[in-house]
Amino acid sequence: MNPPALTIVGPRINSSRKIIAQAIQEKNEALIQHEARIQHEAGAAYIDVNAGAFLEQEVEYLPWLVRTVQAAVDAPLWLDSADAEAVEAALEVHRGKAVINSITFEKQRMDAMVPLAVKHSCGIVGLTIDSIRVPTEAEKKCEIAAHMVEALTAAGIKKEDIFVDPVVMPVGVAPEAGKETLAAIPLIRAAIPGIHIVCGAGNVSFQLPNRALLEATYLAMAMAAGMDVAFLDPCNTSIMASIIAAEALLGKDEFCIRYISAYREGKLGKK
Amino acid sequence: MNPPALTIVGPRINSSRKIIAQAIQEKNEALIQHEARIQHEAGAAYIDVNAGAFLEQEVEYLPWLVRTVQAAVDAPLWLDSADAEAVEAALEVHRGKAVINSITFEKQRMDAMVPLAVKHSCGIVGLTIDSIRVPTEAEKKCEIAAHMVEALTAAGIKKEDIFVDPVVMPVGVAPEAGKETLAAIPLIRAAIPGIHIVCGAGNVSFQLPNRALLEATYLAMAMAAGMDVAFLDPCNTSIMASIIAAEALLGKDEFCIRYISAYREGKLGKK
Repeated sequence: MNPPALTIVGPRINSSRKIIAQAIQEKNEALIQHEARIQHEAGAAYIDVNAGAFLEQEVEYLPWLVRTVQAAVDAPLWLDSADAEAVEAALEVHRGKAVINSITFEKQRMDAMVPLAVKHSCGIVGLTIDSIRVPTEAEKKCEIAAHMVEALTAAGIKKEDIFVDPVVMPVGVAPEAGKETLAAIPLIRAAIPGIHIVCGAGNVSFQLPNRALLEATYLAMAMAAGMDVAFLDPCNTSIMASIIAAEALLGKDEFCIRYISAYREGKLGKK
Repeated sequence: MNPPALTIVGPRINSSRKIIAQAIQEKNEALIQHEARIQHEAGAAYIDVNAGAFLEQEVEYLPWLVRTVQAAVDAPLWLDSADAEAVEAALEVHRGKAVINSITFEKQRMDAMVPLAVKHSCGIVGLTIDSIRVPTEAEKKCEIAAHMVEALTAAGIKKEDIFVDPVVMPVGVAPEAGKETLAAIPLIRAAIPGIHIVCGAGNVSFQLPNRALLEATYLAMAMAAGMDVAFLDPCNTSIMASIIAAEALLGKDEFCIRYISAYREGKLGKK
């Protein structure tokens, strides 16, 4: 299959999953590498690695994950950690251009991570959260994003290395959460040209049934709004079918060649 | 199930379907009434009726469809015809507020249909097509819509009775078609407050496989963009699942009550 027009970050190597936590503890390279390979083959351009469940050992486990994954796939990683020491250790062994995932617009978080991003010329994900709150309103998200990007570029990070995540909260708890985050995307696009906008949809469906349906629907709407990078499981066929359909519908798959191939390969489900 | 936040127009009673054409010719009331009932029960607020396959008999068949459908369901109809005589005959027997589906912004079409809409105080669908062309570009669609709504209101039609359809062409033929029509929706919303925006997604997937996937994905994106009325088959469970998910994600289903009920009733599919 051709590479997707949407840039996909594969989220499966996350220590919040029991099977992954166990594999990390047992240094089970084969399992981690399998998880990396299936995501890469299914279309992930980046592989996210997270060892956050192990507070004490994260500084040891995160670089181990980097070496293990990069021994299996030729892809850059997202270093999913709030611990600057672990991120630094991971960056030391990372090959190519990594992405730090993530910072909020808070002095302490910025001071810890931004110098690492500058030193290693890597990418960085900025959540639209500041020290005061996690705003729901689209305008406030855009305002935080603009201030954060200003600070990041002033520190020497290129716009093309910045991934703004307009953070969506669960719609089961906050009914306006999806709508406002979707509205934030074109606002951020217009206000801050040259950056990436990344969304994950795992949160939005929290505590609701049939999460893949909500995630697939949300990501298609976010693509239409202007998201260019998505945190999604490319091995989930119902989510990928929706992404491939959205690309065809948004003119990112000329004459629907990828859509038709995916259909022929049985990747779009029935009907 | 609660009524959907999106207004649905059920398209199944269309003479381009063989089974419907045959039922019309045979005056098979039971079949037509069954098609009306299943759509109404599945959430259609309006039922579309079309006898356009019968050029000569449309003036007889369209009012027959109106009487037959309204004997079975208590719902207003969309009179899907280009023939003003057939529409007039149908309006004479229609109970409640019908909608004329549709006109283009062309003198001949306007002159024929607008007086009927005024006389019967009914709704009218306006396609963003003028005598020169069927534009792809969002801005041009919006421009035609604005001129058309101006002419319709000048003739005495209320804004709330106008349904603008920004016409989407097949993406398999015109790669930009979906993107531009989706972009037209917020432009039209902003330029012409108070009207309805209606989309159908049947066209967009023309000659592509797995049409329900494209239709469901497109309609979710159109809802996020601001469409409030959709021409869709409410009996198609994969399309309806997507609509119900989109409503939950867009804050139109507070605390996801309808989404959760639909799940419990087995209407969202598996997972």
